[in-house]
Amino acid sequence: MKKIVYIVKGNGDKAEFDEKKLLKSLKNAGAEENIALRVLDKVYPQLYDGITTKKIYKIAFKELRNIDNPSASRYQLKWAIMRLGHGLEGFTFEKYVSRIFENLGYNTRLNVVAKGKNITHEIDLEIEKDGQRYLVECKHRSKPGVWIHIQVPLYVYARFLDLNDKYNGAIVVTNARFSKQAIAYASGVGLRLIGWNTKKQDNLKYLAEKSLVYPITVLKSIDDKCLKKLFNEEIIVVSDLLEKKQIIYKLFKKQKADKIIDEALKLKK
Amino acid sequence: MKKIVYIVKGNGDKAEFDEKKLLKSLKNAGAEENIALRVLDKVYPQLYDGITTKKIYKIAFKELRNIDNPSASRYQLKWAIMRLGHGLEGFTFEKYVSRIFENLGYNTRLNVVAKGKNITHEIDLEIEKDGQRYLVECKHRSKPGVWIHIQVPLYVYARFLDLNDKYNGAIVVTNARFSKQAIAYASGVGLRLIGWNTKKQDNLKYLAEKSLVYPITVLKSIDDKCLKKLFNEEIIVVSDLLEKKQIIYKLFKKQKADKIIDEALKLKK
Repeated sequence: MKKIVYIVKGNGDKAEFDEKKLLKSLKNAGAEENIALRVLDKVYPQLYDGITTKKIYKIAFKELRNIDNPSASRYQLKWAIMRLGHGLEGFTFEKYVSRIFENLGYNTRLNVVAKGKNITHEIDLEIEKDGQRYLVECKHRSKPGVWIHIQVPLYVYARFLDLNDKYNGAIVVTNARFSKQAIAYASGVGLRLIGWNTKKQDNLKYLAEKSLVYPITVLKSIDDKCLKKLFNEEIIVVSDLLEKKQIIYKLFKKQKADKIIDEALKLKK
Repeated sequence: MKKIVYIVKGNGDKAEFDEKKLLKSLKNAGAEENIALRVLDKVYPQLYDGITTKKIYKIAFKELRNIDNPSASRYQLKWAIMRLGHGLEGFTFEKYVSRIFENLGYNTRLNVVAKGKNITHEIDLEIEKDGQRYLVECKHRSKPGVWIHIQVPLYVYARFLDLNDKYNGAIVVTNARFSKQAIAYASGVGLRLIGWNTKKQDNLKYLAEKSLVYPITVLKSIDDKCLKKLFNEEIIVVSDLLEKKQIIYKLFKKQKADKIIDEALKLKK
């Protein structure tokens, strides 16, 4: 019989370890049922009371990598998106979100200045498809267990009202979770929320996977040091690595570059 | 001839030292012209390139205290309001703002829960006078040189819209300064802003002085240690000290209590 372990979640809450959740996230990452179960078997003996979710994910990820490297990279999506905050001036998340919408068939424009009824607004991202135009506010968080509270949807909605004649709607995208209040209000005023705890078609992970847009931070071979160099060259997602191979070979020694390209190719399969 | 000194402002900007500004703030604190000039004479030899505004105020305040103690306390209002953040759970500023409005003839209620069209809102402060009711959002900042940006008036206005049938207007009160965007937007949608860089009748300092509400942190005899004890007893403003003398004598030794009461009495004159 498996022992009961109490874990500490990202927000500091305590909860019983739930193997179903871990299995689900492994399978969401593309691991086959039998592989997910093998990972779980490896994880169990390493659990202890008071272990954090982050630590569990780290262990599971390491075990998954040993068994099945490409799905391990996908599994790491949540942490990889958090690492986008290590980019210059914090704009990397906006660029990443823009890529997702592009791959979903939208025209996108970053850092738009738009004149409203009362003031001029700076819009993180503007997206357009089939004659419908939306303003997108991006909220990146670098820590797990963080919530986007009611103030964000409130101010984005007020901004939308001030720009009413220019946009058909407004969207808030975050790699964190939305509070209940935030979700209830947004649903009431018709604001679209995309985040980590939103339903399937508005789930950031689902959209990233659907649009096949993985940030370069999912790759094991990319550490913080090379991250900045790559962001500087506007290399944000894995497909950029493959499209801009020459730059990779200019930035790094052949062996390192080979390793990066190889890992990128494996993930794209 | 007086030398030219370059100072560093709260926000990090550099500027030439302007004696007019210092004189004005001394006079605003109630110092007579001749006393303000005497303070300035004492301050000048202590200035040096790269001195911060905060340091200048500290020197000026010390000199003013030597010459004229009660106006020194009033002069310190800005720093005293910043120190309100040392209170428990940060609610002290809300309580302080509530006192100002009370003294201006409003009925006030702190921490109101109000049902809006889409969600239930938590309102910092609700004020009422002559059948007009306003929701008040309080934004306390513990550092100098901080700005309240456009997001705050945007979300307060959206909150007001959601509660439209319950309030006649909304007010944002801060001990910081509002950005230009924030001021332009608020004026466009009819939101009232009260802060450190707003015009006379909406200036926090003006309103504090007009309503004769000084936070206990203006008193020299009150250090951080006794601050918490007093806040715990809901003693926030100087007049509380005089109305709740028994509590002061219970909390502190006779000598310390005497000192506090004496300083409070001098200020009230």
